[in-house]
Amino acid sequence: LICVDWGTTNLRAYLITANGEIVAQRQSPEGILNVPSGGFAEVLNNLISDWRIQGDEQIPVLLSGMIGSKQGWIEAPYASCPVSPSDLCHQLSSVPNQAQMWIVPGVCIQDPPDVMRGEEVQVFGALDLLKTNDGLFCLPGTHSKWISVNQGRVEHFATAMTGELFATLKNHTILGRLMPEASATEFDQNAFCQGLATAKKDGGLLHHLFSVRTLGLFERLPASALQSYLSGLLIGHEIQDLGFNMIHQHEVILLGAPALCQRYQEALTYFKCRSRVISNDDVTVQGLKRIAQEAKIISGS
Amino acid sequence: LICVDWGTTNLRAYLITANGEIVAQRQSPEGILNVPSGGFAEVLNNLISDWRIQGDEQIPVLLSGMIGSKQGWIEAPYASCPVSPSDLCHQLSSVPNQAQMWIVPGVCIQDPPDVMRGEEVQVFGALDLLKTNDGLFCLPGTHSKWISVNQGRVEHFATAMTGELFATLKNHTILGRLMPEASATEFDQNAFCQGLATAKKDGGLLHHLFSVRTLGLFERLPASALQSYLSGLLIGHEIQDLGFNMIHQHEVILLGAPALCQRYQEALTYFKCRSRVISNDDVTVQGLKRIAQEAKIISGS
Repeated sequence: LICVDWGTTNLRAYLITANGEIVAQRQSPEGILNVPSGGFAEVLNNLISDWRIQGDEQIPVLLSGMIGSKQGWIEAPYASCPVSPSDLCHQLSSVPNQAQMWIVPGVCIQDPPDVMRGEEVQVFGALDLLKTNDGLFCLPGTHSKWISVNQGRVEHFATAMTGELFATLKNHTILGRLMPEASATEFDQNAFCQGLATAKKDGGLLHHLFSVRTLGLFERLPASALQSYLSGLLIGHEIQDLGFNMIHQHEVILLGAPALCQRYQEALTYFKCRSRVISNDDVTVQGLKRIAQEAKIISGS
Repeated sequence: LICVDWGTTNLRAYLITANGEIVAQRQSPEGILNVPSGGFAEVLNNLISDWRIQGDEQIPVLLSGMIGSKQGWIEAPYASCPVSPSDLCHQLSSVPNQAQMWIVPGVCIQDPPDVMRGEEVQVFGALDLLKTNDGLFCLPGTHSKWISVNQGRVEHFATAMTGELFATLKNHTILGRLMPEASATEFDQNAFCQGLATAKKDGGLLHHLFSVRTLGLFERLPASALQSYLSGLLIGHEIQDLGFNMIHQHEVILLGAPALCQRYQEALTYFKCRSRVISNDDVTVQGLKRIAQEAKIISGS
C-alpha cells in the first residue's frame, strides 16, 4: 500500500508492506496550495511512479488530507459524525483516470457546523497504536481539533482557531506593537502561566486580550514576555471551552508538533488535567493502513 | 472655557460659555498619531489661538483623550477606580509653558489591569445630560468600553477588543477569504441574529469563529452575509461576557456612533436587555465642563 498524506503545505508518501511496516518514505513541499489546478496527477506521479508497479502488480494508493477538499484533486464528500474507520471505507472517493487510487472523506458535524480532513485518520491511527477504542484527543495547531472517540467511532469534534488568531493578533493588531521581534523572544514560563490564570477569570476572551496591552503598558510584564502571555491566554481559553466537559474525567491525548504539544501539556497540568503526548510521525500511515484493511484494499495484518 | 477632545485620529475644540452653551467649534484630522513629537502646541495654537484671548482675559483650556497618553503631549497619570469628576479635577496635569491649560487624567483599574482615556469624561457628561448619578454604559468601538457608575463615581470598567478583532479577522485570516469586498456587502439582519444565537451556545469564541468558515463552506449562509454573522458573533460574546452581570437588571446606555449603537441595541434586545442610545456629540464637552466646574476653573452653571 502507498499512503499519501497531502495537506495544504506538504505532501508525504509512504510505501508500506501488508503488515504495516514502512519500507520507504518521501516528501515534497508541493502541498495543495503549491500545485496548479489540474497538476495533482503529475506531482504525485513524479514522487511515487517507481513504487506503483511491482512486478505484475499495481500497488494501491490511499490519500488523506486537504487533497480531498474543494481546492484539492477531487472533492471527497464529508462523512457525518459519528464515524468509524469502517464507515469511512464505505465512502472512499475513487480518483478519476487513476487505477486503484482513493481519497478518504473528511468528517463533518452539523450544528454548529464543523469540518476536518486528515485529523480523523491520525486519530484512528493513534487508537491502533495505543490499542484502545476510546479517548479524548487534542491536535493543537493553526486550527486546533478536539476529538472524542467512543467504542472506535469519532463521536464529536470541534475546531478552535487558536493558532491562526495568535498569529494575526501578533502581526496585525495593537497587541503586537509592544512585542519585540520573534527572534528576540524566548518562551517565558511565568508569563505563559499568568495567561492561563487570566483565562480562568471572568470577562471573556475579548476583554482578556486587552490585558496583553495593559500589562505591557504598566510594565508589569516585560515586552519579551507578552507573546508567551498571549499564548497562555489563548490556549487557556481553548482548553476550558472545548474538551466537551470531559477533560477532568479523561486523560487528554495530545497529537501534534512536539514543542506545541508540550505547551498544551503544561496548560492541562495547570488546569489539573491528565494528558499524554503521542508523536504524530506515524499515525497517518497507521490510520490509512487501518482504513485500507477495512476496505479490503489490503488484507488485515 | 475651551474644551478639547484630542484623540488618536481626530482633534475637536469647543468654545463654551460659563453656562455650558457651545458658541463655536472646530475640528481637524490632526489626531495625536498625525502630529510629530513636539508639535502639539503649534497644532493647537493654529486651531484656537483667536479664542484664547478675550479682552484682558486668557480663556482656560481643558483637554481629554489620548493627548494625555505616553504618545501624547505630556503623560497625565491615571486616576484609580472608583473615580468621580471631583477626583479627576484634583489630578489635572498642567501643560508646561501653557498658561491655564490642563489635561484630564485617564482612569485605570488594577486587576486585571485596564485603562481608558476620554471615555470617562463622556460618561460624566452623559450622566449630567441624563440628570442621574447611576448607570451602566457601553461605548462600542475598536476597543469597546463597559463602564458602571454608582452615586456619581465610575466604579468599574472593562475593555473588549471587539472592533479591532472584527477588522483583523476580516482582513487577515481565512475567515475573510470567503467574504466579498466591503462595497458588495450589506448588513444582513438574519445573519447578525444567527451570530448572536451562536454566541449563546457552548464552545467559546475560538470555536465559534470557525463557524464563519463552515457556514460559508456549506453554503448555509451566502458569502455576502458572513460579515454580519461575524459581527453578531463578536458583539454577542462581548455583551454576554462584559456588562458585569448587570445587563438584566439595568438599562444599558449606549454611547457612540449611531449605526454601531443601533447594532448593539438590536443585540441587547435579542438578549432581552433594555437599552437606550445617547448621541455622543456633546457628551465630551458636557463632561469637561463638569470637571472644570469641580476644579473651579469656571463657576458652576
